Amino acid sequence: MDLSKRIDRAMTRAIAQAQGTDAPAGSVPGRLAAALNYAVTPGGARIRPTICLSVALACGDDRPALSDSAAIALELIHCASLVHDDLPAFDDADFRRGKPTVHLAFSEPLAVLTGDSLIIAAFDLLARTEAADALRALQLVRLLAHHTGMPHGICAGQGWESEPKVDLRAYHRSKTAALFVAATQMGALAAGHEPEAWGELGGRIGEAFQVADDLRDALYDEGTLGKPAGQDAIHARPSAVDELGVQGAIRRLQDILGGAIASIPSCPGEGQLAQLVRVYAERMTPVAPVRV
Amino acid sequence: MDLSKRIDRAMTRAIAQAQGTDAPAGSVPGRLAAALNYAVTPGGARIRPTICLSVALACGDDRPALSDSAAIALELIHCASLVHDDLPAFDDADFRRGKPTVHLAFSEPLAVLTGDSLIIAAFDLLARTEAADALRALQLVRLLAHHTGMPHGICAGQGWESEPKVDLRAYHRSKTAALFVAATQMGALAAGHEPEAWGELGGRIGEAFQVADDLRDALYDEGTLGKPAGQDAIHARPSAVDELGVQGAIRRLQDILGGAIASIPSCPGEGQLAQLVRVYAERMTPVAPVRV
Repeated sequence: MDLSKRIDRAMTRAIAQAQGTDAPAGSVPGRLAAALNYAVTPGGARIRPTICLSVALACGDDRPALSDSAAIALELIHCASLVHDDLPAFDDADFRRGKPTVHLAFSEPLAVLTGDSLIIAAFDLLARTEAADALRALQLVRLLAHHTGMPHGICAGQGWESEPKVDLRAYHRSKTAALFVAATQMGALAAGHEPEAWGELGGRIGEAFQVADDLRDALYDEGTLGKPAGQDAIHARPSAVDELGVQGAIRRLQDILGGAIASIPSCPGEGQLAQLVRVYAERMTPVAPVRV
Repeated sequence: MDLSKRIDRAMTRAIAQAQGTDAPAGSVPGRLAAALNYAVTPGGARIRPTICLSVALACGDDRPALSDSAAIALELIHCASLVHDDLPAFDDADFRRGKPTVHLAFSEPLAVLTGDSLIIAAFDLLARTEAADALRALQLVRLLAHHTGMPHGICAGQGWESEPKVDLRAYHRSKTAALFVAATQMGALAAGHEPEAWGELGGRIGEAFQVADDLRDALYDEGTLGKPAGQDAIHARPSAVDELGVQGAIRRLQDILGGAIASIPSCPGEGQLAQLVRVYAERMTPVAPVRV
């Protein structure tokens, strides 16, 4: 099965579980249930679960069900963070993935609850592991919490935007890189490998994504992005384009990805993984400025 | 050590962990860190962790560190739900526990992030369990997620308030009773007992709290409650007082608590636990209408 099919199937199962599709009719709040599915579709690149499963496969993937749970837990958290970040109190975004944001399509209360429910569904998924793999699953819960909450996860990253004085390194590390570090480390751990050695690969991929995102935000229009463009400038957020210019940011992106490939720990699927990063590198590098 | 001291100590440790008090100065977003502590203090009755630890003790409490984690995880989730429920999009409350709500004292973005971070901290806490108790800890993660998220936890309960047609039984069960069922079941599980048999006790205590809360909302003023009064009528929420009148609701409360005591499963500390429920019953029953 190719990775995207594997991810889609596991995501469909996880959302059905959170929606309570096997509960008696009318015993579950239907609008919130619908919002959960709305918030995770269409899937787009599913980049974090793809990285997670790619690392798990490179490490032997001896517990595929657990790898699936790790991958989907990450994506649920990622989607939750998008729903909350789009809220009027944050980015006040109208569109995401080419359709109205959850608070516009449903309501603001349902958007808050959708984010909360997706966060909880992520941990629930990891907890539905067979008793024989309980220790590995519990370590996955801890890794996911570390990279998601306070003091060093994506909540902390978002929190930096409310500080009068920002530690830029901590900000980028937690806001964007954290879930990529989680992706490589959780993939390795799900397959029974020590997660620590995999942190650098995730960190570098995360850094590359931040630079690529800054580039796309600066260069592309809303139609191409599927969400409002130019948000970094509007919200005066730190950006690699602002710091280095467009060409400088593209060079930085290529340097980071070179470092990412060099950092891959020794494992059975090392070569394939390096190839995957190369493919992403090509996809991430903007070909031409198209902002209108 | 008495229960309230035990809870205070464990809560202080958990919040310090989430605040990153051992991280280098300036490497953690300070306002969000401060908001986490603000949201869980003053502690008030700490009723859910007290019930959790009381059940754990009645069951022998053979893993006190795990019981502490279960108790505090519950309280973190409860506090998170209060912060999110107070948001302008929900109750738009100005006061909670006699002080300004988190979104007023900090900001709306920080209130959303505070709730998110407290939810994650709850799961993180359970995951910081020694390897030998991994299976029990993972089962606690699953129980907590079940009673917190969708389709049957407190998120679902809150979600019912956005439905055109409400299943009242499901609404009350998930909105209020869920965390009480979690409290008794997690207390039993932390001490190595089967959680299922403990669900009824939690459910009945939760039901009693809902009726007591309806009574207090209808009878007391804002100064006594530490939060706005008369909210059920304002928001047209279902209430036992509305359904049964004040005297009827008080009788219902007493019946429920009698049933709660009768439902306590056989265990070493059965008698003490029954006494505890009696004490709560007395405290919960309003003595005189004082709404001004």
